Amino acid sequence: MNILERFYNGDRMALSKIISFVENQSADYRKVLARLYPKTGKAYRVGFTGPPGAGKSTMVDKLTALLVNGQKSVGIIAVDPTSPFTGGALLGDRIRMQDLTNREGVFIRSMATRGSYGGLATTTKEVSLVMDAFGKDYVLIETVGVGQVELDVVNACDTTVVILVPESGDSVQAMKAGLMEIADVFVVNKSDREGARRIVTELEMILDIRRKQGEWEYPVVSAEAVNNKGIDVLLSKILQHRKFIMEHHHFERHRKEQIKAEIKKIVEMKIRDIVGEKVLVSLDLDEVTERVFQGQDDPYSVGEKIMSRISITNSG
Amino acid sequence: MNILERFYNGDRMALSKIISFVENQSADYRKVLARLYPKTGKAYRVGFTGPPGAGKSTMVDKLTALLVNGQKSVGIIAVDPTSPFTGGALLGDRIRMQDLTNREGVFIRSMATRGSYGGLATTTKEVSLVMDAFGKDYVLIETVGVGQVELDVVNACDTTVVILVPESGDSVQAMKAGLMEIADVFVVNKSDREGARRIVTELEMILDIRRKQGEWEYPVVSAEAVNNKGIDVLLSKILQHRKFIMEHHHFERHRKEQIKAEIKKIVEMKIRDIVGEKVLVSLDLDEVTERVFQGQDDPYSVGEKIMSRISITNSG
Repeated sequence: MNILERFYNGDRMALSKIISFVENQSADYRKVLARLYPKTGKAYRVGFTGPPGAGKSTMVDKLTALLVNGQKSVGIIAVDPTSPFTGGALLGDRIRMQDLTNREGVFIRSMATRGSYGGLATTTKEVSLVMDAFGKDYVLIETVGVGQVELDVVNACDTTVVILVPESGDSVQAMKAGLMEIADVFVVNKSDREGARRIVTELEMILDIRRKQGEWEYPVVSAEAVNNKGIDVLLSKILQHRKFIMEHHHFERHRKEQIKAEIKKIVEMKIRDIVGEKVLVSLDLDEVTERVFQGQDDPYSVGEKIMSRISITNSG
Repeated sequence: MNILERFYNGDRMALSKIISFVENQSADYRKVLARLYPKTGKAYRVGFTGPPGAGKSTMVDKLTALLVNGQKSVGIIAVDPTSPFTGGALLGDRIRMQDLTNREGVFIRSMATRGSYGGLATTTKEVSLVMDAFGKDYVLIETVGVGQVELDVVNACDTTVVILVPESGDSVQAMKAGLMEIADVFVVNKSDREGARRIVTELEMILDIRRKQGEWEYPVVSAEAVNNKGIDVLLSKILQHRKFIMEHHHFERHRKEQIKAEIKKIVEMKIRDIVGEKVLVSLDLDEVTERVFQGQDDPYSVGEKIMSRISITNSG
């Protein structure tokens, strides 16, 4: 039995191998994705982002347990921005999450973003497609909020949950960074701590404006993930949002935008490969570099010259 | 007098405007960079990275004062990864740094990375070129360590300084994240605090291996930036590293690598523009997207089809 057959039969090892294949962008990984694509579109994708220590993993963990109890299968992607400084809890998270991996219907994958410098940030989207094709009902994508990465998550998800905690005065920071605009659901975790009520009030005030503009309520959920409090409310808000976007065609529009972005990304990456192989190799890059280093030319003029010799024609 | 003349005459307002022009990638900004390029190559570029709260800004601040006292002019680029969660001190930093902006020969610019999603992370490199062309002796680039961003900084700098603090147990995290490999000089800041000696010892142990492989000493400097302690040692280590890379041709090799990366980046960005304008516009993207959404096609096969119609030729 080949790996795709095993994959379709629900073999976790096959799932794991195909994910690695896609994550590493191995030769012909796009062909594999093309094969899997018809099986996708059924999984509902929820993104979770927030500061280090906000309890994202615990939240995802508890929510997963709730979903599994309701006979749903869950794929989890933990995107690790490989920051040396925000990653303190990661190892612990992974160890804790291993409890979950033994549960029927749960598959967890950690992904690093370090290697993807220069490309569109990660293959998170592609990995979520693989889990989707595998038949997961939900794909939960978790990432620490560090600028580019969480935007990637938003683009790969249907509902985005932003998790804040009382102590960090996060609401103002979140607003400044535009996180208010990406969140569909807010969670104030560790809501037993001092300052929890203040941050909820702040969020409510800020959200008031957005609520008046649209039809979605932008709920703020108070939770204590470690004590399993508020998780049921969170799930009901996620399901409400799902219903909302389905009814208002946001779901369709959003997925179509994602499809367009995917096509663009695929074409750009292919052209970049070709340019890397054909154009820059045919050019004596060392010689040109030497000229620039000596001050006889500059990279911008060189770029112009290269481009003036390249013609990209579309016979379609 | 046009803006470039004012720029060459040392007009700070003209510098500021040209930086904005480049940062926003306004039309023809590459032509401006091509004009400035012959004036570049003189500034020495030092990158500073480390965790939030490590005292990077204070360190850069004190080092700048030391350089200015030695009659050197300094440009500072504070790269803000616009993380909602690591940026707590940013506003304070900026206010504090305004003391410096009033000093002769110092120019400070904050840059956000948020907008650059999808491209090579920032125009940090380009902005440093503008400061270089303006005649700055040193360009100091400061960023919080969040994965992609600090790699950008390394690629834009001659010497990279990694700043750690005792309390965060950073040495292990730094090692895991590959920061050990990018740092030329380490600083343990807040060295009066508990655990400072331990982190220095850990670093020394880890660095022992690297020191045996190469000829550079990879110094670990103990400092208390707020009390202006250790800044002179840091500067002397930076200058030693400068001397070292000059003598060992690392400087030349590194700059040439940067030039190559720049040329590639310029070509890739241009190709992306062309893909957006010519290739995808000619295609009925809406129709294709609809087909994919309906499950009649997939983005990967669509990408193949598009590429099969595109020919890239090199007449050079």
